[in-house]
Amino acid sequence: MSNPIQFYFDFTSPYGYIASERIEALAERHGRELQWHPIVLGFIFKLTGSQPLLNYPLKGEYARRDIQRACRQYDIPFQLPEPFPTNVIAAARAVLWHQQSQADAHQSSALIHAIYRGYFADNRDIASADVLIDIAADCGIDKAALGQALGDDRVKALLKTATDDAIEKGVFGSPFVLVDGEPFWGQDRLEMLDDWLARGGW
Amino acid sequence: MSNPIQFYFDFTSPYGYIASERIEALAERHGRELQWHPIVLGFIFKLTGSQPLLNYPLKGEYARRDIQRACRQYDIPFQLPEPFPTNVIAAARAVLWHQQSQADAHQSSALIHAIYRGYFADNRDIASADVLIDIAADCGIDKAALGQALGDDRVKALLKTATDDAIEKGVFGSPFVLVDGEPFWGQDRLEMLDDWLARGGW
Repeated sequence: MSNPIQFYFDFTSPYGYIASERIEALAERHGRELQWHPIVLGFIFKLTGSQPLLNYPLKGEYARRDIQRACRQYDIPFQLPEPFPTNVIAAARAVLWHQQSQADAHQSSALIHAIYRGYFADNRDIASADVLIDIAADCGIDKAALGQALGDDRVKALLKTATDDAIEKGVFGSPFVLVDGEPFWGQDRLEMLDDWLARGGW
Repeated sequence: MSNPIQFYFDFTSPYGYIASERIEALAERHGRELQWHPIVLGFIFKLTGSQPLLNYPLKGEYARRDIQRACRQYDIPFQLPEPFPTNVIAAARAVLWHQQSQADAHQSSALIHAIYRGYFADNRDIASADVLIDIAADCGIDKAALGQALGDDRVKALLKTATDDAIEKGVFGSPFVLVDGEPFWGQDRLEMLDDWLARGGW
């Protein structure tokens, strides 16, 4: 059995969104299972001394253009949301809770896509628990159960553990893929990842 | 007539080196002329608040791995030189002087490749005028003429003008390509550039 593709992403990362729309087809091409790992980059940036790309002069303007260009290239719907970036703690908790408690990987990935598209295609306020609960309900997830989970200390602890785990594995950006111990940072490494899996590394 | 590909690069940029080994084939595929623009990113980083990638914790370690992986992918000889980064002012001046005074674009690009390979494949000290002059001599360039040029105020002024021009055009990294007004930053955008030129944009 080959190892799963470990896909780390932050819900306010535009390149994470783009990669989230491309990674399943890639995993399928290589017969690899895919594991989704929501992270909160804000916690990790404190360690690396980084800032969100769009905050930098010049680079930020370029990135806005590059993101929209890549979305057009891959036919991914996109509009830069307001506010940007946004608080993704509740969104990450919602996914971690679902993964932990619902044992329905298909519904988990549907929830991830729905949150990402809600933010980057439909400009929904994914920092809001009410909005997240509505998005989840559209995926067939119980509103009351998620509402309760978002305030649950055990769910908060899940995010803490997931963050520590990501840091320990050297994850420092979004999207970030680990497969067979090899790290790939950025949606612009998916072609290299594709080639890597096809050739079994080099 | 279609516009030339404007290729901006810093001699201490590993991704600039990788792109320098790939850009000519790309330009040729699309029947585009290629214009080489040496820059000194240190001057530009002061404006953008950036640092060399390898200076960042975690990202730096990843980049070392990614650079070597990309070189193996494209069969480009590489060893991380010491010191790294290095001072590229003299190297940039040598190229600008040659481009300005020698009217031999083929020899200019040979000089660029020889300096880049000298640094990233053969660990030569390209901050040293003597080393640069030796490298240039191997390309058939007159030693005395280059030696004189490196201390010439008019050549220093060429670099100042080139830097100002790059900043004015929004160049903030290496490699950086401008073509038909469209910016592409990073050797990992060469596939997108290829696609862009093939499709005439999108």
